[in-house]
Amino acid sequence: MENFINKIKAKNPLIHCITNYVTANDVANALLAIGASPIMADEPEEAYMMSAISNGLVVNLGTLNKHSIEAMKSSLVTANLGGIATVLDPVGVGANKFRTNIANELLKNYKFSVIRGNISEIKALDGLVSQTKGVDANEKDEECEQSKVDLAKSLSQKTNAVVVISGKIDVICYKNRAFICENGDAMMKDITGSGCMLSALIAAFCSVSKDLFEASLKAVVLSGVAGELARKKTDAQNGANASFRNNFIDEIYKMDDEKLEKFARFSEI
Amino acid sequence: MENFINKIKAKNPLIHCITNYVTANDVANALLAIGASPIMADEPEEAYMMSAISNGLVVNLGTLNKHSIEAMKSSLVTANLGGIATVLDPVGVGANKFRTNIANELLKNYKFSVIRGNISEIKALDGLVSQTKGVDANEKDEECEQSKVDLAKSLSQKTNAVVVISGKIDVICYKNRAFICENGDAMMKDITGSGCMLSALIAAFCSVSKDLFEASLKAVVLSGVAGELARKKTDAQNGANASFRNNFIDEIYKMDDEKLEKFARFSEI
Amino acid sequence: MENFINKIKAKNPLIHCITNYVTANDVANALLAIGASPIMADEPEEAYMMSAISNGLVVNLGTLNKHSIEAMKSSLVTANLGGIATVLDPVGVGANKFRTNIANELLKNYKFSVIRGNISEIKALDGLVSQTKGVDANEKDEECEQSKVDLAKSLSQKTNAVVVISGKIDVICYKNRAFICENGDAMMKDITGSGCMLSALIAAFCSVSKDLFEASLKAVVLSGVAGELARKKTDAQNGANASFRNNFIDEIYKMDDEKLEKFARFSEI
Repeated sequence: MENFINKIKAKNPLIHCITNYVTANDVANALLAIGASPIMADEPEEAYMMSAISNGLVVNLGTLNKHSIEAMKSSLVTANLGGIATVLDPVGVGANKFRTNIANELLKNYKFSVIRGNISEIKALDGLVSQTKGVDANEKDEECEQSKVDLAKSLSQKTNAVVVISGKIDVICYKNRAFICENGDAMMKDITGSGCMLSALIAAFCSVSKDLFEASLKAVVLSGVAGELARKKTDAQNGANASFRNNFIDEIYKMDDEKLEKFARFSEI
Repeated sequence: MENFINKIKAKNPLIHCITNYVTANDVANALLAIGASPIMADEPEEAYMMSAISNGLVVNLGTLNKHSIEAMKSSLVTANLGGIATVLDPVGVGANKFRTNIANELLKNYKFSVIRGNISEIKALDGLVSQTKGVDANEKDEECEQSKVDLAKSLSQKTNAVVVISGKIDVICYKNRAFICENGDAMMKDITGSGCMLSALIAAFCSVSKDLFEASLKAVVLSGVAGELARKKTDAQNGANASFRNNFIDEIYKMDDEKLEKFARFSEI
Repeated sequence: MENFINKIKAKNPLIHCITNYVTANDVANALLAIGASPIMADEPEEAYMMSAISNGLVVNLGTLNKHSIEAMKSSLVTANLGGIATVLDPVGVGANKFRTNIANELLKNYKFSVIRGNISEIKALDGLVSQTKGVDANEKDEECEQSKVDLAKSLSQKTNAVVVISGKIDVICYKNRAFICENGDAMMKDITGSGCMLSALIAAFCSVSKDLFEASLKAVVLSGVAGELARKKTDAQNGANASFRNNFIDEIYKMDDEKLEKFARFSEI
């Protein structure tokens, strides 16, 4: 097993995030917690230059607008040229055709190393009819594990990207191989940004490894384990979702590779 | 008394917020805390589609710009057509003529279910000369209760909206009826976003009831009670405004209809 | 010694921040914590009007875009005309030529009272070849104290501004005089926004004094002392960077001039 966290802390990778303003602060603090450096820049005229000096690029569609879309496109050009890891977080894709069209255009023209979303978003990306409800997963889409794995495999084979479906059980898939991860806590869906933070963490993990499949898996495990530990602390404090948010980032900060391995619960399926 | 919180948790309403980037994270977490789903989308070409699938729309003028104003207008069209609750938070209105003109234009052309602001903002909206100072209420405007009630009634009658004036004593008014609510804590004005969060919570409450007046009143009570409970916890932690912000959202999460009724302090005036 | 904190709490100065969306919430809460009122407005058509009624203006290049740059320029015109304190936070300057060009253009055409950045950013501003890495200081630039002081003096003499270089040891310089401040904690670099908050606090301190050099120095001391106290509380809570962020703002809230003087560690160099 690669010592991802040690490697990140040693390399201090610069992760360029073109992301939404709702969770940008949490994403930045989560990246700092793991030992990476966040940079958010979404002016089209400079964003591609930030990607050119970065070790990873996250494209998060949360509060996209025409300007940030241009920044995403030009940044993906330099990121793809430079061969750095690129992560797509298709927030809310499927909710309306504008957002879905943008996601499709990005997928068609640029190379993504990893795509991470909830089941509704991944379904929409895969071109199926989905019941997306805003940015949260629709319960109707929270189906059986096997159908999630099949979906992830389908999208991974079409895009050549690692596909991560977040949910009660996370699915991490590359082409015809898939892992499920059982780490995590129900309160992760009661804060905004747990998905956005995970997408950025995946970019950080991918920036220190050539094995993007394992890197994505371990980032998912990290997020889940941090969620479990944060929940224990939150309950002990008689806190709720806002405390959980802080504890979650704190637990990422306090994680090391040994602790990660100790609490990890994943298996190939 | 309607069981608003139970209803929100059961319905999980989608609340579309065209809001400022300063407090968007807090607004999202407060909505999640009460059991609603937040969606922030302010690209003009897609925002109206988000409103079309939402159960409530919040228009918050905090960090407005020309693009978000277009998003507000088109979203209000679909929200009004769909008959969902619309809440106007006129942040900083009265501070300059640009902001005041936008607010007036919105009021003239679209239907708002609820308008919530501080006394300076509501005074500016009502067309009076106000002493607005940035986004915080001017002390000169913090007048006697009766003049606040008269002001709220005036604006409510002109706009046909429920009018909420936040302050030491909150006023909730619909046409010629008014309640005052004494819940709350002084530290609420020492964090950014307590007003923004309340406006979003009002939208959530209105999304599960036909009685928008009671819904607005109960959302105000919720915010005030959460503030009181958060203050107790903050003091016990030897914390200050940042801790209070987290505790405030936590207390919203932990609230139920029984607790709300137990601590409520409001009366018709 | 001036009683800066008392004065701020008495005056409640309005601080206009044209700042990035990553840390805007923290900046607003830090300003509220010290007793100032934050206003964030970056629409070009209204921003200059906000500066006209403000007591201080912060221009932070974090997530700049073409629109916010226009807002910065027109706001600087009214701020300079009105004679209020203006603070430049050159986030990420040196990372690419777009950002560096903007900073240079601002420096050439407008008057800044204070410029605050890390060593890489200040070096870039001074026209030297710098090794900027995103928004965090490059370790190669973290040189000996004396070279930092020389750099600060050089930029101060060129710009007639107070120059603050944040780092393990902070340097506060005006023309040929310089102080170093040893307050602070290593965890301040593990949260996003500690620099942004300091820049805003400097504006608040400058808004209540004619001695901008002492005001800047004392704001730096405040930030450092708050960092030290926050770290103690964070460790006692077994927390990490997210807890530290909240504790940091809490400690600003709980600070008074006596406590500040008691913990201050600075000296002229």
